[in-house]
Amino acid sequence: MMATNGKDACGLKNDVSSVSSNGPAVANGEATEASTRSKLQNGGTVRPERFAFSPEPTIEDIRRMQAEFTDERDWNQFHQPRNLLLAMVGEVGEVAELFQWRGEVAEGLPDWTDSEREQLAQELSDVLIYLVELAEKCRVDLPQAVLRKMALNRLKYPASKVHGSAKKYTEYKD
Amino acid sequence: MMATNGKDACGLKNDVSSVSSNGPAVANGEATEASTRSKLQNGGTVRPERFAFSPEPTIEDIRRMQAEFTDERDWNQFHQPRNLLLAMVGEVGEVAELFQWRGEVAEGLPDWTDSEREQLAQELSDVLIYLVELAEKCRVDLPQAVLRKMALNRLKYPASKVHGSAKKYTEYKD
Repeated sequence: MMATNGKDACGLKNDVSSVSSNGPAVANGEATEASTRSKLQNGGTVRPERFAFSPEPTIEDIRRMQAEFTDERDWNQFHQPRNLLLAMVGEVGEVAELFQWRGEVAEGLPDWTDSEREQLAQELSDVLIYLVELAEKCRVDLPQAVLRKMALNRLKYPASKVHGSAKKYTEYKD
Repeated sequence: MMATNGKDACGLKNDVSSVSSNGPAVANGEATEASTRSKLQNGGTVRPERFAFSPEPTIEDIRRMQAEFTDERDWNQFHQPRNLLLAMVGEVGEVAELFQWRGEVAEGLPDWTDSEREQLAQELSDVLIYLVELAEKCRVDLPQAVLRKMALNRLKYPASKVHGSAKKYTEYKD
């Protein structure tokens, strides 16, 4: 999808509910980065602050909004599962374009401009929107499916067995 | 990812809160399909029932659970943005494998077995899990980014202008 003028919130709106009132203001990438570093709270306890998403919209909210968008435009005639899958693949390609030719990129994208960050936010959103609509059209309850898959992942990769290793589960010995 | 034995809920758990108590039981793919067809309610009003996701987990719930999973295994050393992007690309490929060589696939996947549906549910989940972790590591508030992108899409594709057309927004004339 097209680049934008970068005047938006740049994908950096943070969930500040867990940031103490005397902590740093969270308004841009640097402040968000700062909020992930440890800081003293409660008379000396070090507690790392971690970036978090906004609680809404939920996946179901996104499904419903996208269904309304598609219905209003009479676009369900084009939105068969394989077409949606190809649309998602296209959007994944657009995310990949933003990371190509760069070399390693550190967590938090410290060298990216606001415009690049907003473009990334848009392309990641496009992937999610098509993923949600694909799941809907396939009658997969995506939020519940994720819970089942995460339970399976915990069984396949017991923390005690795989700590610090990138081996695939088929490579572990009992 | 591996196929499973298909004994799970097969990605078909439906949000039944909007189905009337005298409606059809929603327990499998066929019943879900039935619930999307119109039925008489409230003394004759025809209201189509639409498939919906469960309200939870939210995208933030998934971010937090995956962060815990990664932390417990000391896997953040491997989870840089580009590695996560490649992991997501791999999972998209696994979704694509399930649709290849099939020809057109109708909404609701009427000819798919329970095992195939559950495998699809797992691969879609893997895409979402990596997408969420990629957004987190890039400090993109994914739920809010989707809201902004959807607002942009409504501006780019006004319903009155694009009804029933698959043209790209750059092809429309004012």
